[in-house]
Amino acid sequence: MEGFFTTSTMVWIAIGVGVIALLFAFYLSARVKKEQVNNAKMEEIAGAIHEGAMAFLAREYKVLVIVILALAALLVVAGFATGNGAETLNPMTAIPYVIGALCSVLAGNIGMRIATKANVRTANAAQRGTNAALGIAFSGGAVMGMSVVGLGLLGLGIVLGIFYLLMPDLAEVTRASVINGFALGASSVALFGRVGGGIYTKAADVGADLVGKVEAGIPEDDPRNPAVIADNVGDNVGDVAGMGSDLFESYVGSIIAAIALGAVLDFTVGNSIMGVLVPVLVAAAGVIASILGSFCVRTGENANAQKALNLGTNVAMILSVVGAFFATRLLPDVNGLDIPVSFANGVFIAVVAGLIAGTIIGKLTEYYTSFDYSPVKKIAASCETGTATNIISGVATGMISTALPIIVIIIAILVSYEFANLYGIALAAVGMLSTTGIIVAVDAYGPIADNAGGIAEMSGLDPHVREITDALDSVGNTTAAIGKGFAIGSAALTALSLFASYTQAVGMDSINILDPKVVAGLFLGGMLPFLFSALTMNAVGRAAQQMIEEVRRQFKTIPGILEGTGRPDYATCVSISTSAALKEMIIPGLLAVVVPLVVGLIPFLGKEALGGLLAGSLVTGFLLAVMMANAGGAWDNAKKYIESGVHGGKGSEAHAAAVNGDTVGDPFKDTSGPSLNILMKLMTIVALVFAPIFLG
Amino acid sequence: MEGFFTTSTMVWIAIGVGVIALLFAFYLSARVKKEQVNNAKMEEIAGAIHEGAMAFLAREYKVLVIVILALAALLVVAGFATGNGAETLNPMTAIPYVIGALCSVLAGNIGMRIATKANVRTANAAQRGTNAALGIAFSGGAVMGMSVVGLGLLGLGIVLGIFYLLMPDLAEVTRASVINGFALGASSVALFGRVGGGIYTKAADVGADLVGKVEAGIPEDDPRNPAVIADNVGDNVGDVAGMGSDLFESYVGSIIAAIALGAVLDFTVGNSIMGVLVPVLVAAAGVIASILGSFCVRTGENANAQKALNLGTNVAMILSVVGAFFATRLLPDVNGLDIPVSFANGVFIAVVAGLIAGTIIGKLTEYYTSFDYSPVKKIAASCETGTATNIISGVATGMISTALPIIVIIIAILVSYEFANLYGIALAAVGMLSTTGIIVAVDAYGPIADNAGGIAEMSGLDPHVREITDALDSVGNTTAAIGKGFAIGSAALTALSLFASYTQAVGMDSINILDPKVVAGLFLGGMLPFLFSALTMNAVGRAAQQMIEEVRRQFKTIPGILEGTGRPDYATCVSISTSAALKEMIIPGLLAVVVPLVVGLIPFLGKEALGGLLAGSLVTGFLLAVMMANAGGAWDNAKKYIESGVHGGKGSEAHAAAVNGDTVGDPFKDTSGPSLNILMKLMTIVALVFAPIFLG
Repeated sequence: MEGFFTTSTMVWIAIGVGVIALLFAFYLSARVKKEQVNNAKMEEIAGAIHEGAMAFLAREYKVLVIVILALAALLVVAGFATGNGAETLNPMTAIPYVIGALCSVLAGNIGMRIATKANVRTANAAQRGTNAALGIAFSGGAVMGMSVVGLGLLGLGIVLGIFYLLMPDLAEVTRASVINGFALGASSVALFGRVGGGIYTKAADVGADLVGKVEAGIPEDDPRNPAVIADNVGDNVGDVAGMGSDLFESYVGSIIAAIALGAVLDFTVGNSIMGVLVPVLVAAAGVIASILGSFCVRTGENANAQKALNLGTNVAMILSVVGAFFATRLLPDVNGLDIPVSFANGVFIAVVAGLIAGTIIGKLTEYYTSFDYSPVKKIAASCETGTATNIISGVATGMISTALPIIVIIIAILVSYEFANLYGIALAAVGMLSTTGIIVAVDAYGPIADNAGGIAEMSGLDPHVREITDALDSVGNTTAAIGKGFAIGSAALTALSLFASYTQAVGMDSINILDPKVVAGLFLGGMLPFLFSALTMNAVGRAAQQMIEEVRRQFKTIPGILEGTGRPDYATCVSISTSAALKEMIIPGLLAVVVPLVVGLIPFLGKEALGGLLAGSLVTGFLLAVMMANAGGAWDNAKKYIESGVHGGKGSEAHAAAVNGDTVGDPFKDTSGPSLNILMKLMTIVALVFAPIFLG
Repeated sequence: MEGFFTTSTMVWIAIGVGVIALLFAFYLSARVKKEQVNNAKMEEIAGAIHEGAMAFLAREYKVLVIVILALAALLVVAGFATGNGAETLNPMTAIPYVIGALCSVLAGNIGMRIATKANVRTANAAQRGTNAALGIAFSGGAVMGMSVVGLGLLGLGIVLGIFYLLMPDLAEVTRASVINGFALGASSVALFGRVGGGIYTKAADVGADLVGKVEAGIPEDDPRNPAVIADNVGDNVGDVAGMGSDLFESYVGSIIAAIALGAVLDFTVGNSIMGVLVPVLVAAAGVIASILGSFCVRTGENANAQKALNLGTNVAMILSVVGAFFATRLLPDVNGLDIPVSFANGVFIAVVAGLIAGTIIGKLTEYYTSFDYSPVKKIAASCETGTATNIISGVATGMISTALPIIVIIIAILVSYEFANLYGIALAAVGMLSTTGIIVAVDAYGPIADNAGGIAEMSGLDPHVREITDALDSVGNTTAAIGKGFAIGSAALTALSLFASYTQAVGMDSINILDPKVVAGLFLGGMLPFLFSALTMNAVGRAAQQMIEEVRRQFKTIPGILEGTGRPDYATCVSISTSAALKEMIIPGLLAVVVPLVVGLIPFLGKEALGGLLAGSLVTGFLLAVMMANAGGAWDNAKKYIESGVHGGKGSEAHAAAVNGDTVGDPFKDTSGPSLNILMKLMTIVALVFAPIFLG
């Protein structure tokens, strides 16, 4: 076996499986494009959404290029400035950094390009029935999913190839620290994708709703609303590209942390490369499993879309477990670990613990945010006594909903550590993320179905078509909730595993809470998610305000706009969202990059305080993210529940209260909450990459 | 000097200064009672409030007696079960426990008894002018303040007398651990006072508002509203007794933690009793300073009440610093401390750091919650676009407002540790709390002035009287905000200092964040404040619902009630609030006591995980408490700002949005936020007292 599983095998497996995933994505996108749309109105609207989305990306890239070049230059300069030994920041870190950023950009671009083609084709296929529409929507989402894991593995394979095959003499420590650059690249893009995207989508959404629905009294997705295209673009920018870049970051971050910890494992027998190889194999197995799982997403006519998506996910999970079992067989035992089973079995248990934890957290999110269960029903009931009780009830539900997910994460940590030490925690994260391919697919399906509904509405398709897209969309809401929970859980576990890497990198066996520096770090780190959430929330407020003013201006100045005879200026609204998103993310973004650097470099704080800071931000980041995502999701569905006819239904006072809750929840669940995933990971990766300079 | 400053001196100083404070309280209450009220209507209303408050206390005591006896029995049983050596829980801990609980109960009883007499007398004196009314209201508040510090020092003196003078042969470790029982007693009562009181006051307030103002359209403080007495009782229960018990807990907790750390200090020369004596002296000096400061609270006619209160507080602070300077002179140098100045100076710097930090945190709270500054003005402006933007803006402000206070706390921690090690952190807490006497006085003045306004309104006094009470009340809002910030900051510093004691008690030099048990503890502890907040928030919701139903029932069934001819049944509303508060606090209360015990006793978690748990709960507890208190305070004042005539004033749509924000903020700032102070301290004290049993 060991003759076959060598360093070069690892590189070629990563590259090979990455290419397979991309080929599958190519096949899926061909399937999406095959659907012919013969409706000028639909094509026009879809074209505007597609153009808006691409325009956002183009503008984003202009800023991104500068940021990436600047950080790459910083890596090179800091590298040369601190010398070139094994314990210093290596200037070569810039290479994987740029590759990581490029891969993430490419994944987002492909995913969004196809998503904004799949939406109109889903609406078109819905004219023929549920199954056809589900097929297009899921395929569109799966392109994003496969691009994420495909480019993740391919990019990682290239980086591993460069540093393991081309530079076999490099010290192991240097290698591990250089490769971290890849995760930093992914993180830089995720910051733009998730934080910028989150601001974009809610600025457009809140702006469109407040003037359109509330002031002008026109329904949602009405083409007379100038912000309607921006709103639909936002669904793609936030929920497709944003979510994709977030999970891309977690995906590669978890693998890289495992590689770094695997590289320093001390094996009693065999080749130490196995510790590095196994995470790649587990990930690769998960990709193949996701591809096979996605073939199971089919329904008969009038069948249940939810069941089809669940089947695909479950098949992928089971196959991933099988793959992980065989992959972990390669691991020999390790010196000095006090674990109750063989190392191979211990690591397998850790992988399974991660996978199960991810699934449970997803299900818990569904429980707290779906109107099939009591929490949302109670929130809906509280709308009867007005907005204030609805808000209190939602906040309380969000807070309570942190308890079980954190217990699940704690159990996963304790189990994976018990059975495979720190490496086990890293492999739990890899395990949780091994099915990322299908999870992103199912998640990105949601906004495509949502967009399809919007296009059907705006194009005046038969109400029957809207019914089908609505049914698909409602399933998409559930999958989106699960995806959000999964994204938070995996971000936390990835950050923890990167944190373990950080402590190895700075050579700390202990971060002592009784050291006042660490206490200072804990407090400061704990505060940052609050500050970050507030900044992003206020950003949405300011951006939405600009949108409101523009929509009001158009309603006033464009003749016949409200009668449907004058054409609204969609492009300006798209442009406002884009500019606002890019401008508003500067301060939160800088915060996430600069604070860990400053804390690490200030002499009376240093690496100990930085350790405390990362731990503190991980704890409150996870808690706030869960709270905000679940409160927002619960308010959203409480409104939908009332719209289904209970508590007076649409137009009742309870409904008005529910609409307020939903509006409050928008930036909670789609901007601030998800942005915290990035904060947790980005700060840890910055600390990890720049760790050598804190040693001085 | 050392001949005079002995163990018995310390005991007699504590007892003596405690008695002086109580005598001063007695003098002040006589001053309050001297004011003659000759208005049957006023007397009737005030009588109802007084009776309601006393009824709440009586019901609370019935439950409290059981809880205290049960915990005392647990201490005795656990003590005998674990043996009787120096390293085990000593059954004698039950003695200071019961004394601590009794002192806190007595302080609350005296404070609330006089506060509910001072309210009507303030209204009465307001007929003669501002100065007379201010005198009564402040004297009433100062009775609470002086009772807190007086009974704190007296009780502590008695306990110290028992264990230092009567049992001179007791091992120092045992002595320190037994005395912790006193803090546990204070904590048990604070749980009832702050959590139960917080639920009481908001159940009554929200219930009264939602039916009275919103449904029946009658103004606030209207005697036709059956919940109006409960609402006024609630101000006393929550803001007088609740706040008092919270600060009583911090006050004695900080002194006890300092005593415990002082007892184990290793002096190069002199008597080690100085480490124990100095915290008592610093506290005693603060009491004398508070008494002298309170003589400065006087205004000429039509002068500024705020300035008078500020003058008193500032004088007390300066005198405290002077006192602390002389007290710290007694400290000889200590072996093995790496500090840049003499130990005496180092400790003095720590005391001053604590005092300054407390003041700054108070001022920051004022900045974020007063409508003189931009945060509240921005929130008020956001009301123009409706409730949702108001809520988002308030939450964001609350979150942002955590940044500076936490930086202040961090600086205080780093400075006090740098100059006097762990003992410095404890003395910073003692320093911060040394002026508790006048701070509680100023704080408790607020609800008395508020009540006075209500009584003036209900009794139909001249509008001019209401103007005076309103002016006093508005000053009270500011002082209440400052008091809230101070209570949170001091709770956090006290908890930290008790936490340091805990680690000494379990003999841990290090709590390593890299240990997965500690990570598990951090996550779990970080989550508890979220859960605790949610539970208390939901408790208010349920209790308010009961109140709403009762008020509706009375409006329907009592003839002539809305015309003012039928007499509402106030007592039933008071009884509903009381029962609900006592019932609803069971689960959060149990949580705070049981979780640390369980975590400490579970073998695979243990004292390490418990250490992580305490640190985690301290971090998120402080952050959430600040966020909720400030968001709530800001919403409250944004509403008042709009009522002053901006953004359309009373009755505008912006005002309606502001009212919703205020209602959301009620449980934030008066129930959940302050309850977190108790959670942070109680869990740490439970861990500290039961520390010996975690060692097994």
